Amino acid sequence: MLLNCDLGESYGAWTMGQDTKAMAHIDQANIACGFHAGDPVVIQNTLALAKAHGVMVGAHPAYPDLVGFGRRSLNCSGAELQALLHYQIAALDGMAKAQGLHLAYVKPHGALYNDMMTKPDILARVMEAIASYPLPLRLMLQATGQWLEHQAAADQLGLKLYFEAFADRAYEDDGRLVARSKPGAVHDHKGMLEQVKQLLNKGTITSINGKVLELKVDSLCVHGDNDAGIAAIHEIRALLEQSS
Amino acid sequence: MLLNCDLGESYGAWTMGQDTKAMAHIDQANIACGFHAGDPVVIQNTLALAKAHGVMVGAHPAYPDLVGFGRRSLNCSGAELQALLHYQIAALDGMAKAQGLHLAYVKPHGALYNDMMTKPDILARVMEAIASYPLPLRLMLQATGQWLEHQAAADQLGLKLYFEAFADRAYEDDGRLVARSKPGAVHDHKGMLEQVKQLLNKGTITSINGKVLELKVDSLCVHGDNDAGIAAIHEIRALLEQSS
Amino acid sequence: MLLNCDLGESYGAWTMGQDTKAMAHIDQANIACGFHAGDPVVIQNTLALAKAHGVMVGAHPAYPDLVGFGRRSLNCSGAELQALLHYQIAALDGMAKAQGLHLAYVKPHGALYNDMMTKPDILARVMEAIASYPLPLRLMLQATGQWLEHQAAADQLGLKLYFEAFADRAYEDDGRLVARSKPGAVHDHKGMLEQVKQLLNKGTITSINGKVLELKVDSLCVHGDNDAGIAAIHEIRALLEQSS
Amino acid sequence: MLLNCDLGESYGAWTMGQDTKAMAHIDQANIACGFHAGDPVVIQNTLALAKAHGVMVGAHPAYPDLVGFGRRSLNCSGAELQALLHYQIAALDGMAKAQGLHLAYVKPHGALYNDMMTKPDILARVMEAIASYPLPLRLMLQATGQWLEHQAAADQLGLKLYFEAFADRAYEDDGRLVARSKPGAVHDHKGMLEQVKQLLNKGTITSINGKVLELKVDSLCVHGDNDAGIAAIHEIRALLEQSS
Repeated sequence: MLLNCDLGESYGAWTMGQDTKAMAHIDQANIACGFHAGDPVVIQNTLALAKAHGVMVGAHPAYPDLVGFGRRSLNCSGAELQALLHYQIAALDGMAKAQGLHLAYVKPHGALYNDMMTKPDILARVMEAIASYPLPLRLMLQATGQWLEHQAAADQLGLKLYFEAFADRAYEDDGRLVARSKPGAVHDHKGMLEQVKQLLNKGTITSINGKVLELKVDSLCVHGDNDAGIAAIHEIRALLEQSS
Repeated sequence: MLLNCDLGESYGAWTMGQDTKAMAHIDQANIACGFHAGDPVVIQNTLALAKAHGVMVGAHPAYPDLVGFGRRSLNCSGAELQALLHYQIAALDGMAKAQGLHLAYVKPHGALYNDMMTKPDILARVMEAIASYPLPLRLMLQATGQWLEHQAAADQLGLKLYFEAFADRAYEDDGRLVARSKPGAVHDHKGMLEQVKQLLNKGTITSINGKVLELKVDSLCVHGDNDAGIAAIHEIRALLEQSS
Repeated sequence: MLLNCDLGESYGAWTMGQDTKAMAHIDQANIACGFHAGDPVVIQNTLALAKAHGVMVGAHPAYPDLVGFGRRSLNCSGAELQALLHYQIAALDGMAKAQGLHLAYVKPHGALYNDMMTKPDILARVMEAIASYPLPLRLMLQATGQWLEHQAAADQLGLKLYFEAFADRAYEDDGRLVARSKPGAVHDHKGMLEQVKQLLNKGTITSINGKVLELKVDSLCVHGDNDAGIAAIHEIRALLEQSS
Repeated sequence: MLLNCDLGESYGAWTMGQDTKAMAHIDQANIACGFHAGDPVVIQNTLALAKAHGVMVGAHPAYPDLVGFGRRSLNCSGAELQALLHYQIAALDGMAKAQGLHLAYVKPHGALYNDMMTKPDILARVMEAIASYPLPLRLMLQATGQWLEHQAAADQLGLKLYFEAFADRAYEDDGRLVARSKPGAVHDHKGMLEQVKQLLNKGTITSINGKVLELKVDSLCVHGDNDAGIAAIHEIRALLEQSS
């Protein structure tokens, strides 16, 4: 089980996240590509930080919406979606190579991630765009009850996947996240650690209604936004080391 | 002698240039990378057009100034300059690869080009940035009276160059362009064709004061902005075929 | 019956539309505010052009999506929608005043216009934002079968309206436009002139299915994008002068 | 003596500064206008906060350089400079009016401020732009040894001024700030308080070389970026209350 975290989300004079603290304890850095966050200097520095810690690097592409931080859906044609994915992936790919790193995967950001998980045509476009990029990149997506379907679609394109789960979020019976607007959507600290333990020990997550979900999970998404997030990363890392 | 042209300078709903007409008659396409012009869809389409015509592709990176079209100098630290060059080069490199093309060179745009030609520290930074990018890219720069110096500096970095000349612009005695604000800065049609003929036949350009300049010129910069530019490309291409 | 036209949609080095030709023959200029098109210099020049021709000026605000030209819906909170409308209206209001003009109305652009016409909560927010701006601005919206409802909602806020119709677009039975994807959505030249004549003479539009629609229409939307649009403006202006 | 502070410099998902803490203790809020920082929602919220605390509001316009936070000079024509000032001032003017506030002054930001203080033609353009805006706005600029000259130039345009001084910065003999790159450019905490006390009690500032400068100072610039800045605001406010 790997830990992944969104990093490199500063922009110009604005700082976001505690990247230095987070990078020391994660396995995979999802690096913003300039469309929702991350200017070239931020990307360069984030790649250097990943290199210093031996962390695997992934591109974290988004819809072009800086003021909205990529959190709003933008209706794109198939050609545009491919182009904006290739552009952002390419920027990270080349800048990683320039530091002797290689880009390993792609995790869409924000609304693009949500659209990919809820609209099959968007997921198909994302898979095709990544599979058609001339580098063996994996797609990171959410482990849901549909993971076998998603795996089959990826197999057809020769695309490998990382399935991720969320440590602090409650799950619906179908393996999707409980919407943040609903009560119980986000676990408290204790609940989060229990969800991680169960996932590590039994490979399951218990839904908000008590259903035991068997999900394929390769990576856990953690957050480096603030002190609480950094503390949680430490504890989850400790659990991972105990279980391994 | 090759012909190079700035292309892919449309953006979103705005069209600039007659790319389809120009691409059919040039050898090298300097493709905007998104910072002064060129969104991902435009870049993708411009690369496809270059591929269809067998045209060599170069990155045409700029300062981040969309509203100013990259025509204004922006004071950047060395780290920022490297980062914004790597980002833009990488975007074009990867998107070219995705279409089975390979990026061959870099020609800075607008104010970045001017700064490079007038400020030795900027030229040094640009050369280092391109030399440190993990692809054997050439730098395209202006052929001036300093071309031997520029060649020597590039040799030290293992960087190859394309020296370019301008068909329609008058030259000062030191091999720089006559500023557009001065009378006689831009040749009329006849003057342009004569300058090209002399360059092809004798390898020289006569300055505005009558001095004969021996310049190393690998490529001629032509313009695809309007009908007159396209007509000039046709005539210059005809001269090239006669001379070869 | 007035003629309105979207103008000031150039941006930086990119020119769009034949503003000078269009401005000479219209009554109302919908001026882009910088979010989908129109930088400060373009706005300043467009206002000066409107002043020279004695044309009424309106703000043409949009979602913040320059690369998408404001044609894509962006999910905004109510507070954000108000803020981005006030910002854009204010920019035009003050710049108009600086030239001795006064801003007369607001016509939302692109996806914001479509959202306003199809989502009642968006229309309510737009009406509230304009009514709460400290200037007696009208809202320009589409004349549809719901125009009485729209008028009533505006009356409650003390907001005046301009209802507009489209010269070249076919109408559904409910007074909405036939989607561009359907056959017959856009009239040919002759059909356009007939639709205008009928509207001027009888105050009606015949739908694509032959239903006669009685719509309140204060203004006709015309286009200054190209030569055909300019020619159509001339002909429609001639029809208006005959009918008056 | 008033206290002014740059506020509203957040953008989208990025927060900058401790605006709520700072606003409670200042007299004048210099509010970013969207070109270097501040989106419409941030502006709306910052104006509301100023209203709640009865703080005078000023526009804080900048060169259009979001990624550079307006800290880099951008060569603008006179027409462009006027247009970008009017646009930003207008946006703040109208949004202030929409909350029942009135915009009182303009303080250029970052590189535009520096250019105004070092290039007489830029200062002239800025003064003309503000004087030609149809609202009696003051210009806030730095109190230097040239303040009488600046006052005379403003008088000719009927423009009123606010001269500001910096609490924590050392001064050269000519009344300009010591460049940050030089030793002693920024006072320590004690030095800052002494500089403020001397200014309040004697109306003078002692330069880094010991020269006593008589400067006309209407307002002191304080910083709300971090806890130290907020603490300094409290102490300076206490000094002001003692001296009044």
